[in-house]
Amino acid sequence: MFLAKINVTLKPTVNDPQGTTVLGGLKSLGFNSVKDVRVGKFLEVKVDETDPSKARSVVNDMCEKLLANPVIEQYSVELVEDPG
Amino acid sequence: MFLAKINVTLKPTVNDPQGTTVLGGLKSLGFNSVKDVRVGKFLEVKVDETDPSKARSVVNDMCEKLLANPVIEQYSVELVEDPG
Repeated sequence: MFLAKINVTLKPTVNDPQGTTVLGGLKSLGFNSVKDVRVGKFLEVKVDETDPSKARSVVNDMCEKLLANPVIEQYSVELVEDPG
Repeated sequence: MFLAKINVTLKPTVNDPQGTTVLGGLKSLGFNSVKDVRVGKFLEVKVDETDPSKARSVVNDMCEKLLANPVIEQYSVELVEDPG
């Protein structure tokens, strides 16, 4: 069993209005040292595979097909062994 | 300047209907080895501070006040130095 920790973020060239809104919120709360905010998704996916390279290829496949939009988003996967 | 990479997740005891929906989607796409999905937020925040411990305390403060809901969510912060 593996636990995949997946970060999905907008590509750097893509506008992030949600991040801009959060930035405005932080500034209005008095956090004047904040310069930029980008917002993405974080997913934890448990896959029942025994081989780490197979697990990674399955998770990458999930990202391409459902979890990320490859046109505007990029993703990174960290795979850790999970006892249960 | 520091870049804070923040993962915000629901506490383990809190139901995650969004994760359940993604799990169903993955299964219906034929990913039968997937066992569990939890969905959270990922934020990248640039803060203009020189001292890492000050930067960390500012970012923790942001999480408590705006970025996470401490009643049902937990967060983790990774701080990396950012050239600009």
